[in-house]
Amino acid sequence: MANNNNSNGTGLTAEQLQKEFREHSVAEFFKKNKQMLGLTGKIRTLTTIVHEYVTNSLDACEEAHVLPEITVKITELGNEYYEVMVQDNGPGLTEETVGKAFGKLLAGTKFHRRIQQRGQQGIGAAGATMLALGTTGKPIQVISGNGKKAFSASLTIDSKTNQPKIIKIDDFKKEFSGTAVKAKFKEIKYQRSEQGPFEYLRRTAISNPHTKITFIEPDGTKTVFNRTSKDIPDQPIEVPPHPHGMTVDELLEMTHITKARKVSAFLKSDFDRMGEKAIEEIQKNTHFDLNKDPKKLVWEEAEEITKTFKKITFIAPRTDGLRPIGEERIGKSMKEIVEPEFLSVVERKPTVYQGGFAFQVEACVGFGGNAGRTMGKDDEGTDVKKVEIMRFANRVPLLFDSGGCAITKAVQTVDWRRYGIKDVNSAPLTIFIHMLSVHIPYTGAGKQAVADEDEIMEELRLALMETGRKIYRYVAMKRREEEKQQKRKLFMKYATEVAIGLSGLTKEKKESIEKKLLQIVLHRLKIDESKTEQENAPEEMSEEEIKKENEKEKKQKEKVEKKQTKRKKLK
Amino acid sequence: MANNNNSNGTGLTAEQLQKEFREHSVAEFFKKNKQMLGLTGKIRTLTTIVHEYVTNSLDACEEAHVLPEITVKITELGNEYYEVMVQDNGPGLTEETVGKAFGKLLAGTKFHRRIQQRGQQGIGAAGATMLALGTTGKPIQVISGNGKKAFSASLTIDSKTNQPKIIKIDDFKKEFSGTAVKAKFKEIKYQRSEQGPFEYLRRTAISNPHTKITFIEPDGTKTVFNRTSKDIPDQPIEVPPHPHGMTVDELLEMTHITKARKVSAFLKSDFDRMGEKAIEEIQKNTHFDLNKDPKKLVWEEAEEITKTFKKITFIAPRTDGLRPIGEERIGKSMKEIVEPEFLSVVERKPTVYQGGFAFQVEACVGFGGNAGRTMGKDDEGTDVKKVEIMRFANRVPLLFDSGGCAITKAVQTVDWRRYGIKDVNSAPLTIFIHMLSVHIPYTGAGKQAVADEDEIMEELRLALMETGRKIYRYVAMKRREEEKQQKRKLFMKYATEVAIGLSGLTKEKKESIEKKLLQIVLHRLKIDESKTEQENAPEEMSEEEIKKENEKEKKQKEKVEKKQTKRKKLK
Repeated sequence: MANNNNSNGTGLTAEQLQKEFREHSVAEFFKKNKQMLGLTGKIRTLTTIVHEYVTNSLDACEEAHVLPEITVKITELGNEYYEVMVQDNGPGLTEETVGKAFGKLLAGTKFHRRIQQRGQQGIGAAGATMLALGTTGKPIQVISGNGKKAFSASLTIDSKTNQPKIIKIDDFKKEFSGTAVKAKFKEIKYQRSEQGPFEYLRRTAISNPHTKITFIEPDGTKTVFNRTSKDIPDQPIEVPPHPHGMTVDELLEMTHITKARKVSAFLKSDFDRMGEKAIEEIQKNTHFDLNKDPKKLVWEEAEEITKTFKKITFIAPRTDGLRPIGEERIGKSMKEIVEPEFLSVVERKPTVYQGGFAFQVEACVGFGGNAGRTMGKDDEGTDVKKVEIMRFANRVPLLFDSGGCAITKAVQTVDWRRYGIKDVNSAPLTIFIHMLSVHIPYTGAGKQAVADEDEIMEELRLALMETGRKIYRYVAMKRREEEKQQKRKLFMKYATEVAIGLSGLTKEKKESIEKKLLQIVLHRLKIDESKTEQENAPEEMSEEEIKKENEKEKKQKEKVEKKQTKRKKLK
Repeated sequence: MANNNNSNGTGLTAEQLQKEFREHSVAEFFKKNKQMLGLTGKIRTLTTIVHEYVTNSLDACEEAHVLPEITVKITELGNEYYEVMVQDNGPGLTEETVGKAFGKLLAGTKFHRRIQQRGQQGIGAAGATMLALGTTGKPIQVISGNGKKAFSASLTIDSKTNQPKIIKIDDFKKEFSGTAVKAKFKEIKYQRSEQGPFEYLRRTAISNPHTKITFIEPDGTKTVFNRTSKDIPDQPIEVPPHPHGMTVDELLEMTHITKARKVSAFLKSDFDRMGEKAIEEIQKNTHFDLNKDPKKLVWEEAEEITKTFKKITFIAPRTDGLRPIGEERIGKSMKEIVEPEFLSVVERKPTVYQGGFAFQVEACVGFGGNAGRTMGKDDEGTDVKKVEIMRFANRVPLLFDSGGCAITKAVQTVDWRRYGIKDVNSAPLTIFIHMLSVHIPYTGAGKQAVADEDEIMEELRLALMETGRKIYRYVAMKRREEEKQQKRKLFMKYATEVAIGLSGLTKEKKESIEKKLLQIVLHRLKIDESKTEQENAPEEMSEEEIKKENEKEKKQKEKVEKKQTKRKKLK
């Protein structure tokens, strides 16, 4: 225990306090602040563990251009005590990297790359190792191989130093290709709830139609989510940053790793959309020679550059680095897994949000059938439904913190009545929304909610409204079809009687009169139909109108902010 | 840029991916995840910076047993560009510690101590240095001295390695005692809103009545929050952990730093409430000799110990390590700074929440006068008020994330109508609540909301209800006083006339009749008063009743959880 009170009770001096100074590793920090890694709550913790392993598996398979085949098995070992096993058919690890990948926080292949990917920080898997150690004292087991050579390792983490601790590493005699990890955890709980591993994997299957996922639950139930597509998504491209989003600090950091020998060459090679003319413009606006070594740039010079960036009109950032799932594949996947009566899929064009980050929105709404969440049955035995909103960011399902997420907000602010849906909350809908970007602006550490940047909100709303229109057409068509059938029935009932009467009067054959009457009825119904169609055409809001509305909201916000500044000057 | 796609497009092997492995420092991590440190949003970022410096100053002054005198000055240097200066009269730093305190994350005197304190992690001040560097490229300035010797330093942080970078360190020629830090930041904004530095300092002054705070705003306005008490709070005591809250992992960690040579001695010296009898009980339940060296304990043995801990009935954890502000000092402070018409202060007894952590609640409600937040004026020119809820944890004001905080929830679940307050939201109330503990269970990284543990919710509600009763008595007394005055007025009006009449009939002097009538009236009013008092006595809920209600709520929660587990088994 620290001696924090000296004997004479007069308090400590700077020299005495100096003795109390300690340094801590990042592992110790996260051990004390597990909630920052999503390791909070018994159910959420288990879902987070599965999420971290599965995410790593998917990323690895894609880097190796392999159709992913993932098995997840959760075994109950005791009260709130489970083993989690995740196996993939990816490229595997080497004996050199296995320790870093599973036994060292902030190590990995992802943190430093500007690219659309699932993982970002190189923390997740090592965080799980730390939790296994902290709740059971046990190391984790890893088997990894490339089809020719395989090894098995037993390892853990030394949290005092944030270094991997390899306990044993052996050749693995059987043929093995991929990575399998097995770890034990206490103080967690398996549940088939909306925030549990089952739902997480079900949604992962929907957003990764090229993936086959086998899941074995603690009670032995085996569920296979089959792939509905055999296309491995193209590798996302690492896009150089656009000048408009550049900060001085980032620019200086880039100078440390550039291979260019001159600032001018550095600008041209390391930035998106940078042409000769822009370089000239920058030279005019800066007080130093752009032939300078970029490694010698000082803050003030870098600031001159970023200030000039803002004055120049660059071509909009490249968006070709993004890899959407695609309308067809989303549709197939939703059909297979959600089984709705009708599907409406929309893929918006890629665009850019503030700071110059490319992003894109895909939306799919399933209507009727097994869409929506079944909450029970009403008095007549009909299913009572609730809307199901599935949020995704770079193909990863977001299960938590839905309240603060731009995606949820977008669903709630669309006026669904325009599209024939009276109350979206109790509608038989499964709404799938995928936001993909080279940089997802998460609201917080848990990476579970997307920030409501203006441009993102706009795209989300437009995507939903577009799906809404298709849903509307289907709902209206269905209603018309029903009406038509009813009218037809009604007409036909009388047509037979009228035909008999007319046949008596005119001596013509009853059948031929009936046939003619039918023709008249069908013609009449057709006219009615085209009329209804015109009358019921949804009041669409053009993109222009939406933009105007958003503009209005923004101004309102600014006004409120200004008012707050002026508020009560105390005393 | 990383080469993440090899030329033939067939994907990467484990060996190729190995080349992409990188390691990162904790500073790089937090640079990318500033929101985890509360450095998010222009206004919140500025408040967080002030908070970090002021918290360190207060902690330092208390460790040195000095009455704190703190000056905060914010200067506007440009658009969204400010300098923040915070100066204290604490013990100062040494030339050896100044770098670690301001230029290295996860270094300091706090992370490893189980003690009631403001800071916990040794991140805040170094995080601010990183932000200064990242937004302006500039180092920070520190002056520190102990009255005899002083030095000035210019320093920053190397985020690649998380090491301090001392640029210059010189003797400071003038006499100086304490620490002053000066740093420049961009992309922040000063505002006198409810979440700005002014409100933060005002509340800090209330919860630290022994502190004098001088604040100079960017427009030059100088506000002095004077101390209302000259008592330096006693040093909180570092309490050894209670066996009931102990995890295996924590126990093993303690064995690394204990000075004891035997497990039995370790248990006795390093745990709270551990007696001879308990040691005997533990020996009976474990399969190894307690004379063993604690450093040689293995997981399974430690687990046997913690399992036995749970079976033994220990005395409740010590609570004497806590240092409340105290009823009198809170009262004085609220009177001086909030200026209400009436004050009701309650200090609950210390108690323990799950895991064995001691905590205590203090509450104070200011009613009328300048209490509550003034939102404007109504048609008659009267101030329109809104309730003001001031949340504190270990004397630190919590300004953000109020929705998810147990303190806010407690205020909202108390039935204020019982206490004569019709609508608490629009009442002229300032509600001060202070939760102090050796370990505040924050809901998240931002340390801005307290988790709603059952025991904590109960104490918060009881504290508020107790203040409510006092408020009720005052409100009722005030109302009665008004009624009494009115009745008296009315009676006296007629008494004079009646006296004149009676005087004519009885020939007695008008004055003496009037005097007697007055006596009758006053006597009558007194009887009425005691009646009203009985009739209006607030329906109090006993502690027992509250406990029952909480129990009910808990069961309800568990029921819902169970239902979720059973829900829809897909496919």
